Amino acid sequence: MPPLNISAGPVELTRQLCNIPSVSGDERAIADAVEAALHVHAPHLRVVRDGDTIIARTELGRARRVAIAGHLDTVPINRNLPVRNELDAVTGEPMIWGRGTVDMKAGVAVQLALAAELSDPAVDLTWIWYDHEEVASHLSGLGRAVRNHPELFAADFAILGEPSNGTIEGGCNGTLRARVTMRGRRAHSARGWMGVNAIHRAGDLLQRLSRYEADRIVVDGLEYREGVNAVRVEGGVAGNVIPDVCVVEVNYRFAPSRTEEEAAAFIREFFDDADEVEIVDLAPGARPGLDAPLAQRFVAAVGVEPTAKFGWTDVSRFAALGIPAVNFGPGDALLAHADDERVPVAQIEFTAAALRSWLAADERPAQARA
Amino acid sequence: MPPLNISAGPVELTRQLCNIPSVSGDERAIADAVEAALHVHAPHLRVVRDGDTIIARTELGRARRVAIAGHLDTVPINRNLPVRNELDAVTGEPMIWGRGTVDMKAGVAVQLALAAELSDPAVDLTWIWYDHEEVASHLSGLGRAVRNHPELFAADFAILGEPSNGTIEGGCNGTLRARVTMRGRRAHSARGWMGVNAIHRAGDLLQRLSRYEADRIVVDGLEYREGVNAVRVEGGVAGNVIPDVCVVEVNYRFAPSRTEEEAAAFIREFFDDADEVEIVDLAPGARPGLDAPLAQRFVAAVGVEPTAKFGWTDVSRFAALGIPAVNFGPGDALLAHADDERVPVAQIEFTAAALRSWLAADERPAQARA
Repeated sequence: MPPLNISAGPVELTRQLCNIPSVSGDERAIADAVEAALHVHAPHLRVVRDGDTIIARTELGRARRVAIAGHLDTVPINRNLPVRNELDAVTGEPMIWGRGTVDMKAGVAVQLALAAELSDPAVDLTWIWYDHEEVASHLSGLGRAVRNHPELFAADFAILGEPSNGTIEGGCNGTLRARVTMRGRRAHSARGWMGVNAIHRAGDLLQRLSRYEADRIVVDGLEYREGVNAVRVEGGVAGNVIPDVCVVEVNYRFAPSRTEEEAAAFIREFFDDADEVEIVDLAPGARPGLDAPLAQRFVAAVGVEPTAKFGWTDVSRFAALGIPAVNFGPGDALLAHADDERVPVAQIEFTAAALRSWLAADERPAQARA
Repeated sequence: MPPLNISAGPVELTRQLCNIPSVSGDERAIADAVEAALHVHAPHLRVVRDGDTIIARTELGRARRVAIAGHLDTVPINRNLPVRNELDAVTGEPMIWGRGTVDMKAGVAVQLALAAELSDPAVDLTWIWYDHEEVASHLSGLGRAVRNHPELFAADFAILGEPSNGTIEGGCNGTLRARVTMRGRRAHSARGWMGVNAIHRAGDLLQRLSRYEADRIVVDGLEYREGVNAVRVEGGVAGNVIPDVCVVEVNYRFAPSRTEEEAAAFIREFFDDADEVEIVDLAPGARPGLDAPLAQRFVAAVGVEPTAKFGWTDVSRFAALGIPAVNFGPGDALLAHADDERVPVAQIEFTAAALRSWLAADERPAQARA
């Protein structure tokens, strides 16, 4: 495999990174390539490797530190590699097409190019490229590296390069899943009136869900839209028996201003006529943290109004460390995992330029200037 | 497994039969036991086996023939075997408690004891014990045996030993099962508003079922009570996906005055907002059929006013063969399929005595008497 040519810039680097297959669990080759390129092109960074996760830090003693992270893995390839150049069918703008272009090697390419270029940034930088994002949460390379090297992850603000069409998507909603159980009493269905039909009892609950208008909650200036949905329903004994149990599994996406406890309390109250409410999965959201001065300068550098991120992303791992975090990367998240995922070349260039202008801007205190 | 001891009488035989588990599809052991016992205790019967259905006939050349039938299978066991003796909490009368006591091994026990005992009955007898009654109609062992051996089923009157509290219950309701499908559109549950939740859509339908007051319809002087119930519900893709399909299985019990076509039309109209209504099982009811002279003598022998049967029973298979049929068996049908089903010992004894007195009564033409 030829070495990565970082100096060719983020667009060419996107092509090179995509053409190194790295489906989750198979990230060694790309991690080796990134590590080798840093040793050649970024001698100003202290590089630590943890499995197939690479952490590369400036240690310049700046007053503030920003963590910038992206995952190296992709979902499975489906005859969509190597990448190719395309023109968008509608707008005619140049695109790079293929697995990983959107989720999220264009974002990693921008980060890697800037990591090599910015040897004297305005803030200290912690670059993190990690494995196992597209699979179960407990496998996450980011989670593992934080457990193994917590001291390397201290930061005042974090940016995750997940595709956001070159806008800032702040924080993320939390997610809760609950099993809501309605009980009844079995009887032969020839004499239904002798039993209590648990499936019929679930009718009220489902109708309430159907009519419920979820909240829109403003957190640090961004509007988070919540949602409460039945994602599974199951009930029934036999074709001639009044069913005594009906279980509705519910997924609640809640604004990052709510704690896990508040989310659980909301669900318990929403289903207070149920016989049982069991919380089976609960992960907090992340506040966008866009009220911090550092973040506000970032918003100004990007020049586009930030919006809320609805889906759960690894920003919440940073939030759990007490670090406000946002998503910022090239590519349309609606094309992530699609067989025809493709990223506009202009978004790669825009994203790189916005990050560069912010990170190079002079915000050092006067006594530290040359 | 010890052999059945038929000569111990119908009460003890009820215990023995119940303690041979025979959930639908698993009737071989009990059918083997019944067949073996007939060979030992009822040499006067001609025994034919069809799968796990046993047909045992006297062939005495009597002027009339009565078919007496019962099914060998039960609904699933739910920690209610082996049977135990109990005293009724209110009346103090002795009961046998456990799966199958009511539906309908006490009835089978009465029949089996009389089959062995009545070697010289007043009418020719066709005893039928069959498999697969508690499941889809097309699996019925009785239906299968009728198709395979129609000549064995000729009769002037039929009695089915389904639980009727020792009274005669005439005819039966029809039964229809339908799969009612609601469709939606998948979306990630983080953006639920992008999809259409099929499970939420089912809420209206279930609430309508919950509120519906079923008809009561008088047929040939007996009142039939109908019912419409959800018996199963299923939907869901994954914990983070808005579900695109929800299927509710519905069971409609309809009066014997309605045709199958009328029943199907009623269900299609009831669920006219569903995306699909598929009729998966449909069996007509049976009119009471108590006008035949043989039936009237039977009513006199039992000495209790006949009533309508609500549940669909295999009397309608006899009705379809042109044979008037009634239900007559020990046990309270309200306890059928209940986890605490239990039969009064006195009803087993009363039912056996009533049947014995009718079947042994001399109704042979003069020239056939000894």
